Amino acid sequence: MNQQLQHLMNCIQSVDQTIRPSVEDHLNDLTKPPGSLGKLEQIAMRYCLMTGTDRPRTGKKKIFTFGADHGVADEGVSAFPKVVTQQMVMNMLSGGAAINVLARHVGADLAVVDMGVDWPVERRAGLIDCSVRSGTANMATGPAMEVAEAEKALLAGAELADKAANEGYTLLGTGEMGIANTTPSAALFASLLPCPVEEVTGRGTGVDDTVLKHKIDIIKKSLEVNRECLQTPLDALAAVGGLEIAGICGLILGAAARKIPVVVDGFISSAGAMVACRMNPAVKDYLFFSHLSQEVGHQTFFKLFDVQPILDLEFRLGEGTGAAMAMPVIEAAIHIYNEMATFSSAGISGS
Amino acid sequence: MNQQLQHLMNCIQSVDQTIRPSVEDHLNDLTKPPGSLGKLEQIAMRYCLMTGTDRPRTGKKKIFTFGADHGVADEGVSAFPKVVTQQMVMNMLSGGAAINVLARHVGADLAVVDMGVDWPVERRAGLIDCSVRSGTANMATGPAMEVAEAEKALLAGAELADKAANEGYTLLGTGEMGIANTTPSAALFASLLPCPVEEVTGRGTGVDDTVLKHKIDIIKKSLEVNRECLQTPLDALAAVGGLEIAGICGLILGAAARKIPVVVDGFISSAGAMVACRMNPAVKDYLFFSHLSQEVGHQTFFKLFDVQPILDLEFRLGEGTGAAMAMPVIEAAIHIYNEMATFSSAGISGS
Repeated sequence: MNQQLQHLMNCIQSVDQTIRPSVEDHLNDLTKPPGSLGKLEQIAMRYCLMTGTDRPRTGKKKIFTFGADHGVADEGVSAFPKVVTQQMVMNMLSGGAAINVLARHVGADLAVVDMGVDWPVERRAGLIDCSVRSGTANMATGPAMEVAEAEKALLAGAELADKAANEGYTLLGTGEMGIANTTPSAALFASLLPCPVEEVTGRGTGVDDTVLKHKIDIIKKSLEVNRECLQTPLDALAAVGGLEIAGICGLILGAAARKIPVVVDGFISSAGAMVACRMNPAVKDYLFFSHLSQEVGHQTFFKLFDVQPILDLEFRLGEGTGAAMAMPVIEAAIHIYNEMATFSSAGISGS
Repeated sequence: MNQQLQHLMNCIQSVDQTIRPSVEDHLNDLTKPPGSLGKLEQIAMRYCLMTGTDRPRTGKKKIFTFGADHGVADEGVSAFPKVVTQQMVMNMLSGGAAINVLARHVGADLAVVDMGVDWPVERRAGLIDCSVRSGTANMATGPAMEVAEAEKALLAGAELADKAANEGYTLLGTGEMGIANTTPSAALFASLLPCPVEEVTGRGTGVDDTVLKHKIDIIKKSLEVNRECLQTPLDALAAVGGLEIAGICGLILGAAARKIPVVVDGFISSAGAMVACRMNPAVKDYLFFSHLSQEVGHQTFFKLFDVQPILDLEFRLGEGTGAAMAMPVIEAAIHIYNEMATFSSAGISGS
């Protein structure tokens, strides 16, 4: 691992549990039966621990949507042609994608980051350019990228988080756009959860039974071809991952180092989050998993990774759409913590 | 049924399905795989049908939290003493309850309505006074109220919806506060779904095993004592229901008559919604069920009533808290429908 990345790893510490009793006491003194606000109370507790204060505050929030292409798309594993990655990135820059609408709805800023889109036409302005290479190589025939390239993508993601922290953002979200990217995500889950390929491979944007079977075969072939290159989480990310997944992983590492909570989007973002947690288990303390995707493997992930999603809106889109929808739920939890009356102040009889 | 109520029933019509194909075409032309925004797409469709337009708009929203007391509280079925109803209503008027915080968070106005709080001290200003009587009678020994009283409460609720429609509100939410009110709600579910009492009776604000068993016995006794008074949904509402449940039911009837979508809160609000739907099945077209409550019987309700909740935040508080949390999800659906680019406009390749 390169030195800069090793330094980043060393900066990430588990949350300090010291304030847990005082946060719990306050939550139980609010004018409601203890625990009756369910997930909001759990979120409030975790947010306090993440940010190291029993006086939590809401603030500016930002979603990072990472775009990149995948060599494995050449194997015909997606319902959409590869060119759609750059078309959708352009759509995001024009404000017409779902993530634009939902980020605006929840009051989050949106950054669209080129981690490695394979542009068939000239690149346009407006993107944050962190491109490491024009799409990955086909992982079914060899490593998707070099380890040094994965490291470069990780550090680029981490730098975005660091910059956001310096700019005063207090909540970050992940998102992605990359045709075929459920395929490397499934490969990463199979390799690092670990679990059978079949349990984490689904229909992506909507492939039929024949393509689904083919997709499973391609993922198995990729894991076999790269079996010598899966020794560490970083190695696996390079061999069977993707550039946008590395960007997400890096953003999460960078945010955890600064103690900024991150809202993880869906299936692909969870793959990036898992790699980050496998690189440093303390990272998990700083993550909110926004939603359960319709991509079938996401359930396997939640079960084996022992985490729970906040929402289930039956999304299977990515882009950061689930992260956007979960952000106001997290803010609601902080408002509940700060603004409700207490039993003593309101003169309410206890049970 | 009194004449005014009969007139209200006659005003409620099922939604017109004529615009369904054009709404569906538009949803499928948005730049995302068809159906990939899951519940948001279903909500957008239903909102269009409810409001009778393929150009839906967001607007002002208001939550009505109905407070009332229950004679059956005397049987010791709740973890909290009856006086907490008025204390919590006062807390809502002071802005310190969970519903105040969450309504503010989502930008909804809040109205606190006295449908029949049993005030042991003087009533205070700020409440909308629709009180029919000071709490119901104990349903374990006879009808909770007269049918004429239930009708009065229904019409009061309907009038609030009508007034809100006239004031330009485009989305209404229900909520309640009433110590012991999971007990009449369970009785109504058992009587009108119908189903065994055990399947819809839970721990409310947190009773132990002994009280839960006693609560089930009391509900069975109430249904037995009132068996002659359960012929129609209105009769059941009067005999084993509650004043705030009648207020919720009336609000829903009034909103449906004006084609205003209503966001139904949790377990108790669902009981009110069910009574409204049993009185006129067309009402169901205008309802969004906000969340799955932790109150165990709510799952039974969703299964037997064949509807799905939008959220599962593990709430068991009521007040309208779940309705508040679902409102921005509904608004997100409308924004998606109105603001996303289409495939043709954005020049995106199809699958």
